[in-house]
Amino acid sequence: MKVAIVMGSKSDYPVVEKAEAMLREFGVDYETRIISAHRTPKQAEEFAANAEANGFGTIIAAAGKAAHLAGVLAATTPLPVIGLPMKSSTMDGLDSLLSVVQMPKGVPVATVAINGAENAAILAVQILAAGDPALRQKIKDFKKKQEEEIIALDHEFQNQK
Amino acid sequence: MKVAIVMGSKSDYPVVEKAEAMLREFGVDYETRIISAHRTPKQAEEFAANAEANGFGTIIAAAGKAAHLAGVLAATTPLPVIGLPMKSSTMDGLDSLLSVVQMPKGVPVATVAINGAENAAILAVQILAAGDPALRQKIKDFKKKQEEEIIALDHEFQNQK
Amino acid sequence: MKVAIVMGSKSDYPVVEKAEAMLREFGVDYETRIISAHRTPKQAEEFAANAEANGFGTIIAAAGKAAHLAGVLAATTPLPVIGLPMKSSTMDGLDSLLSVVQMPKGVPVATVAINGAENAAILAVQILAAGDPALRQKIKDFKKKQEEEIIALDHEFQNQK
Amino acid sequence: MKVAIVMGSKSDYPVVEKAEAMLREFGVDYETRIISAHRTPKQAEEFAANAEANGFGTIIAAAGKAAHLAGVLAATTPLPVIGLPMKSSTMDGLDSLLSVVQMPKGVPVATVAINGAENAAILAVQILAAGDPALRQKIKDFKKKQEEEIIALDHEFQNQK
Amino acid sequence: MKVAIVMGSKSDYPVVEKAEAMLREFGVDYETRIISAHRTPKQAEEFAANAEANGFGTIIAAAGKAAHLAGVLAATTPLPVIGLPMKSSTMDGLDSLLSVVQMPKGVPVATVAINGAENAAILAVQILAAGDPALRQKIKDFKKKQEEEIIALDHEFQNQK
Amino acid sequence: MKVAIVMGSKSDYPVVEKAEAMLREFGVDYETRIISAHRTPKQAEEFAANAEANGFGTIIAAAGKAAHLAGVLAATTPLPVIGLPMKSSTMDGLDSLLSVVQMPKGVPVATVAINGAENAAILAVQILAAGDPALRQKIKDFKKKQEEEIIALDHEFQNQK
Amino acid sequence: MKVAIVMGSKSDYPVVEKAEAMLREFGVDYETRIISAHRTPKQAEEFAANAEANGFGTIIAAAGKAAHLAGVLAATTPLPVIGLPMKSSTMDGLDSLLSVVQMPKGVPVATVAINGAENAAILAVQILAAGDPALRQKIKDFKKKQEEEIIALDHEFQNQK
Amino acid sequence: MKVAIVMGSKSDYPVVEKAEAMLREFGVDYETRIISAHRTPKQAEEFAANAEANGFGTIIAAAGKAAHLAGVLAATTPLPVIGLPMKSSTMDGLDSLLSVVQMPKGVPVATVAINGAENAAILAVQILAAGDPALRQKIKDFKKKQEEEIIALDHEFQNQK
Repeated sequence: MKVAIVMGSKSDYPVVEKAEAMLREFGVDYETRIISAHRTPKQAEEFAANAEANGFGTIIAAAGKAAHLAGVLAATTPLPVIGLPMKSSTMDGLDSLLSVVQMPKGVPVATVAINGAENAAILAVQILAAGDPALRQKIKDFKKKQEEEIIALDHEFQNQK
Repeated sequence: MKVAIVMGSKSDYPVVEKAEAMLREFGVDYETRIISAHRTPKQAEEFAANAEANGFGTIIAAAGKAAHLAGVLAATTPLPVIGLPMKSSTMDGLDSLLSVVQMPKGVPVATVAINGAENAAILAVQILAAGDPALRQKIKDFKKKQEEEIIALDHEFQNQK
Repeated sequence: MKVAIVMGSKSDYPVVEKAEAMLREFGVDYETRIISAHRTPKQAEEFAANAEANGFGTIIAAAGKAAHLAGVLAATTPLPVIGLPMKSSTMDGLDSLLSVVQMPKGVPVATVAINGAENAAILAVQILAAGDPALRQKIKDFKKKQEEEIIALDHEFQNQK
Repeated sequence: MKVAIVMGSKSDYPVVEKAEAMLREFGVDYETRIISAHRTPKQAEEFAANAEANGFGTIIAAAGKAAHLAGVLAATTPLPVIGLPMKSSTMDGLDSLLSVVQMPKGVPVATVAINGAENAAILAVQILAAGDPALRQKIKDFKKKQEEEIIALDHEFQNQK
Repeated sequence: MKVAIVMGSKSDYPVVEKAEAMLREFGVDYETRIISAHRTPKQAEEFAANAEANGFGTIIAAAGKAAHLAGVLAATTPLPVIGLPMKSSTMDGLDSLLSVVQMPKGVPVATVAINGAENAAILAVQILAAGDPALRQKIKDFKKKQEEEIIALDHEFQNQK
Repeated sequence: MKVAIVMGSKSDYPVVEKAEAMLREFGVDYETRIISAHRTPKQAEEFAANAEANGFGTIIAAAGKAAHLAGVLAATTPLPVIGLPMKSSTMDGLDSLLSVVQMPKGVPVATVAINGAENAAILAVQILAAGDPALRQKIKDFKKKQEEEIIALDHEFQNQK
Repeated sequence: MKVAIVMGSKSDYPVVEKAEAMLREFGVDYETRIISAHRTPKQAEEFAANAEANGFGTIIAAAGKAAHLAGVLAATTPLPVIGLPMKSSTMDGLDSLLSVVQMPKGVPVATVAINGAENAAILAVQILAAGDPALRQKIKDFKKKQEEEIIALDHEFQNQK
Repeated sequence: MKVAIVMGSKSDYPVVEKAEAMLREFGVDYETRIISAHRTPKQAEEFAANAEANGFGTIIAAAGKAAHLAGVLAATTPLPVIGLPMKSSTMDGLDSLLSVVQMPKGVPVATVAINGAENAAILAVQILAAGDPALRQKIKDFKKKQEEEIIALDHEFQNQK
């Protein structure tokens, strides 16, 4: 199954491509789209309505300010939607975070940290891994490798001093 | 021309009915609907697409938390949309306010104060009055009456002491 | 009918001129003034008192920090006033936003996003369009064009990859 | 010289009367008025223009939400204006505080704590005391008495345990 | 597969039981535990280490204030962890929300709204549904039913007036 | 009478010197000191105890972060103390503002905007003017000149376009 | 060695007495005083200057709003000072927290959670335990007991269901 | 006794090394480690479990965003843990501060200012000094020297003008 990445504006791509890189690291297929909840509402609705049939297992939605994209997609698709709040030019991303995470009862959005593109990707992989033991193993390997890198950094740091 | 009032949840009505009362005070027709951006997205889209043809001149959208309703309607309708952020059970309405007002470039929402239902109605009347001199006069009368009430309150207060 | 743009300080102009550009795009006349609620209160009062007679249909008021300009104009004019909160050197515009949007009962200000000059202009056009079918059509065209631009960007983005 | 107390709404009086009580404790004359920056702008302007001639030495302005009253008075009067931000029904008074304190260059407002009515009064007395040695002495006595009360409370608390 | 619900304090249960009710509505098995990241760190580590082997497909972690529970579990388990920030006695849940959602790179937590217990449950079901078409269908039915309820409420509201 | 300017750190001087310049514009004498509430508490106490006897009419206290300087001086001196919250390296000055303005009952601090050094000076002049008609006139002249400057700027701006 | 507990106002006692109860649980002596940084500055200075000589090993300082008490004591005493920010009637304790924790370089305050009286006491015990192995053991026992209580609660909760 | 400094990421070192420098100024031994609560949870648990036996008297834990490191260490060690919240790329360190300071009942973290590395070190020295009169004297000397430096700066500043 593939991961859909949808961003509300092309200017979000420098952050969003870190999610792409992480998905490639896990060998997970993805497609990235520019769809705006406010400027292309029909495309958003259509994308969400067909996402499951188009082979996606989860959707990462990246948007900033009054960030409605994740919520708008989650309103239509039965797939789990991961919300990636973008740091905007004012309010330091607090507006984006609250617009994404404070969803009303009935329509959840799985929200990650402001600009947390890598974590959005890892969460997408964890979700796909529900039905995929090989992918589950890759997550375990990733966690192991991450642990070893910090331990190595710590050793190196001790030795430098 | 009529004013549409749309609320995201029936629990918003105790605040929203203050907007209705104010519109009645101005003799302006309105219709109030319960439509959720997240739970009835198709109804929201359809309502917005037909609002102009259905004789509405502006839409008041009341919603709380990750309050996408005003933005979702504004995405589709060419009418001016007035956003009424509702105080929610957490965050004291700051989440609602930021979700309503921080709209991205291209799709404005005319936002009033948190729970400011009367002001949403007055703003709706001011908008309808653009092409309606009699309504414009009613706004002037309203402002005059409001001024006189405060002056009377002040006099009464001076005399009581 | 014309749009009035009033800014509290000349330093607001780099943001405000984006509203001017947007109004030109719609072929809507405007006049831009520097009037301070605090430093030229008489000019503010006079401007607001005469705005309707001077042919304005709505007023965009741009100000920062304890941003009283929109409220001060709205206190006097019967026209709808659009508040444009400016990002200031501290508080990231939150002080401006709250000072503009949290108006007490009786005197609304139609508030747009922090530094959202283009949206202030589009909202002004939507308001003027209430009595002007040709302008209403221009808004529909603008929304259509905006949608097509995002769709084109999305296609281009798909093809680049 | 007298102190003027101006409140934007009669509902502010339960807090504002604590300022009156404190002024009576210092034997300082005051007059309390209900004047709204937004609903009675002419009264506000007129009051500020005549405050000095009417024998006031300073003005306490109490208002909530987008609290423009203190700033509007300070725009016109040469007297020092004390801003008393009122806790409002949403935002816990943060909107009031920022609207009062964040005044732009050229027009200061001497702001006290949210709902800090007693402190507004004490500050007014400190300001009047600039040209009044007897009043200055009363402030010293007040500070001394306040100190003794806390010391007495502390002793009583030690003995109770 | 089952859902694990872990709460940091028994006092969280009045909110958490809404997640249990929602899971029962979907016919999904769950186990609820009281484990504190700070007071029973070994139990937290052990629970996370064995969660996959014990048949859980995802973990809902509910905690307030400096809410580390979700992050601590996510540090150890390869399963997707859903963070449910609890409204606490101060800060209105903002501390809980930021402590849960702002996870550093490498260890995501899928965060839902403050006190959003039902949404935590629905998200858990969406995640389990990745490998379970029958469960996916139940989500579609739930969305459909939810839509119909709002439409019915709207009709009833229209008729009452 | 002179104005005392006290800053908690020499690094505050680039902002504080704007207060000095404003006081010079009014022809008001001042002395500027570096005194830290936390690092030189005895100096702070001694300065406050002697400020009145040393010919000061008011004190401007500039400090950042947990900005206790204004409050510490106000605890001891009977003079009105003007608090100037400094923008610090984190929290954008919100910590400074709250630490300065939210004084408990009995000890007011007349707080101006974050980094509002000019306004601190103007407020000091307004306070000294209580017993000094010539200085009161200078404030009126200042307000007049300020108004004329904005009007001139507005005319120039109209003509440029 | 004893623990000093200083509160800025008697109204803080309902929270502060939880610290006393916790210290009694550890068998640690304490004295509780009412001393205000702003209303009894000399007492505060004197208390801090003599605290070490009077047999105190650490000081817990509880205060709200512009909470300077902990900082004022830390300015004078060489002992570690624990700051306990009190929830106040506005701002939900955020003003207290920032006023206590954001101390400038050179004078730390060991800050605990808003209203976190028990934790202030436990931290005081941890500090005294630096030179006291029996007290260190009591902390280990406390942590063990706390763990066991949560485990017992969890078991009881499992069995009830 | 030594001080342990633990940082959650090597990128924290430019701030953390100011704590090291301060500890060297006091002649206090320290060891600095890179251990992540989320990426190396076992190392964190092991470090905390052995910290006392390894000769540490207190632990400084520096982390940003959802900063769980201090809390995770405090969950296991009986030593006092000093939390140093790091300014992160979004939210200006508010997320870090709340995640560190708002610990639940039973497990305190002695929190210093955002990026307040020097104060973390001074607090560590104050804690170690509980059982070490020579170190206590060094703190007194430090406070004296700090006072003299500010007084000298003040004199120099007076003379320059």
